[in-house]
Amino acid sequence: MTKAISYAAHSAKEPLSFFQFERREVGPKDVQLEILFCGVCHSDLHTARNEWQNSVYPVVPGHEIVGRVTSVGTEVKTFKVGDLAGVGCLVDSCRVCADCADGLEQYCDHEVFTYNSPDKHTGKTTYGGYSNQIVVDEHFVLHISDKLDLAAVAPLLCAGITTYSPLKHWKVGVGSKVGIVGLGGLGHMAVKLAHAMGAHVVLFTTSSNKVEDAKRLGADEVVISKNPDEMKAHLNSFDFILNTVAAAHNLDVFTELLKRDGTMCLNGVPEHAHPSPNIGSLIFKRRQIAGSLIGGIKETQEMLDFCAEHNITSDIEIIAIQDINVAYERMLKGDVKYRFVIDMATLKA
Amino acid sequence: MTKAISYAAHSAKEPLSFFQFERREVGPKDVQLEILFCGVCHSDLHTARNEWQNSVYPVVPGHEIVGRVTSVGTEVKTFKVGDLAGVGCLVDSCRVCADCADGLEQYCDHEVFTYNSPDKHTGKTTYGGYSNQIVVDEHFVLHISDKLDLAAVAPLLCAGITTYSPLKHWKVGVGSKVGIVGLGGLGHMAVKLAHAMGAHVVLFTTSSNKVEDAKRLGADEVVISKNPDEMKAHLNSFDFILNTVAAAHNLDVFTELLKRDGTMCLNGVPEHAHPSPNIGSLIFKRRQIAGSLIGGIKETQEMLDFCAEHNITSDIEIIAIQDINVAYERMLKGDVKYRFVIDMATLKA
Repeated sequence: MTKAISYAAHSAKEPLSFFQFERREVGPKDVQLEILFCGVCHSDLHTARNEWQNSVYPVVPGHEIVGRVTSVGTEVKTFKVGDLAGVGCLVDSCRVCADCADGLEQYCDHEVFTYNSPDKHTGKTTYGGYSNQIVVDEHFVLHISDKLDLAAVAPLLCAGITTYSPLKHWKVGVGSKVGIVGLGGLGHMAVKLAHAMGAHVVLFTTSSNKVEDAKRLGADEVVISKNPDEMKAHLNSFDFILNTVAAAHNLDVFTELLKRDGTMCLNGVPEHAHPSPNIGSLIFKRRQIAGSLIGGIKETQEMLDFCAEHNITSDIEIIAIQDINVAYERMLKGDVKYRFVIDMATLKA
Repeated sequence: MTKAISYAAHSAKEPLSFFQFERREVGPKDVQLEILFCGVCHSDLHTARNEWQNSVYPVVPGHEIVGRVTSVGTEVKTFKVGDLAGVGCLVDSCRVCADCADGLEQYCDHEVFTYNSPDKHTGKTTYGGYSNQIVVDEHFVLHISDKLDLAAVAPLLCAGITTYSPLKHWKVGVGSKVGIVGLGGLGHMAVKLAHAMGAHVVLFTTSSNKVEDAKRLGADEVVISKNPDEMKAHLNSFDFILNTVAAAHNLDVFTELLKRDGTMCLNGVPEHAHPSPNIGSLIFKRRQIAGSLIGGIKETQEMLDFCAEHNITSDIEIIAIQDINVAYERMLKGDVKYRFVIDMATLKA
């Protein structure tokens, strides 16, 4: 066991604070990283505050991890000490089911999340990236290009892959008309990625003050979704809509913008249910409502390579670990463009 | 104009009664049929009683029409007097949009339904199959095999194609595990068709007294959907579920039976909304909820040919036109196995 330091939530009501624990020794197939940056995802806050009623304390959040390899096991083939590397939302899965065989470990019934999952190695709970180091099986470690700003790469490991995966699965590319609902951590990545894939990108937002920024990020058009006339102009015209808004809202105003056979994919689980969707709107154009979860490991590497090729990173604001609780409050107000990333050099024993 | 006789609803509150009107003359591209049988669809009742708030009286329902050709226009190429022929839910569309070009006239924004649609030929409203004859553009007339019982073919024109189209679209075949929800007019056709396509068919019903009948119709298994243990045994196992139940119900108990990437397609618009579906159940297995409407003309012919090849018809109860109002009441109670068909020889001036 090796010592690790971190920031952890010790209960749903307390601010995150310093926490010391032990990582496992580096096994034959393991890679150990010194964590340099870790993105701050809304899931971190949900889990720290037990909003999904499944938190096991202490919770060390963080699943947008980038750093440098400090040790590799004897059987590790693709990493060496000194390499840049990343870890996303998953650190293990069963490796044998149909989902794992298809490279879609995120759908494996025995997936192990980077934090707040049972840890078969320690018998405790997995601890995430708000810490100085992590030990992960090589299969779940990603290669990171040195061409990109490392801090700004971190959010690709969750916000990036969560939007890239459905865009690819539903075959977004040149000639597609794609809607992105919401311009937050996920939405701003979705705009950049869909634009780079060659699609015509329409960003839907309720905030007129996001119009210019959305265009800067790659949106061809921006629609204020509260304006029925603006919405009506896009009826029956979208091949695909990626809806990144988890707050309960009327889905019908977006599904009716889909062409026949179009799909709206939801990325977020609403805390309170969305109003029940209009089934007639699905039937009369053979439309579909779908969900999508993160992405598989192979696809995550593909996304990282795509981002390196197209010079895509997240728009970020770097914070010190000591500011994490303030960052959570600002995140709740939408006061971040578009992702907080913790500079882990600020974490001291 | 030629005289036609029929049964029509004259208002939402009156029983259907005798009604005389005029059909258009047979134009160059038209086919005229003597109607021999017409199936009774739940849509007929909805429209007769203005339950969709769009009825234009008098309403002559009926869109499961089979009969014999009595006249053809000068430019008609594929029908001759004496042929068996059928007409389903559609009698016209724009012919030029992307949906029409793809042979999916049912999704055309300018589709003309067989009854209760604006009729550009007469300036009035289209009148359906509860009548002695009909004049329809050749493109919307189907060829009917003489190998099958003609009365039992009639319901294929709506109940058959409405279930065949989604089963084909979602690629049901040998190796598929398919669920059919509900054993009514649509459900019993779906069971027969999915079985003939080579799928493993599981019928979901709330009625334990439908088990034997479902197996006779082709279901490999029957699950009582009110029994959580029976349902649990099928978690994550279906490639596709066709849900034919329009009454509001909990969709989640079925979506969670889908495999990763599985789709549940809904055929019916509920009068009162279904409870809002669990978006988490979609996200965690990339599942989809879709809708599907009837089928295109080319596909309807394909379905009829498939049924002739596999000796598939509807299970029916033949009634006289004078019994239509009693049949509606019995249909509301689910007291029909599985479709009423009107013997149009009972309709007299």
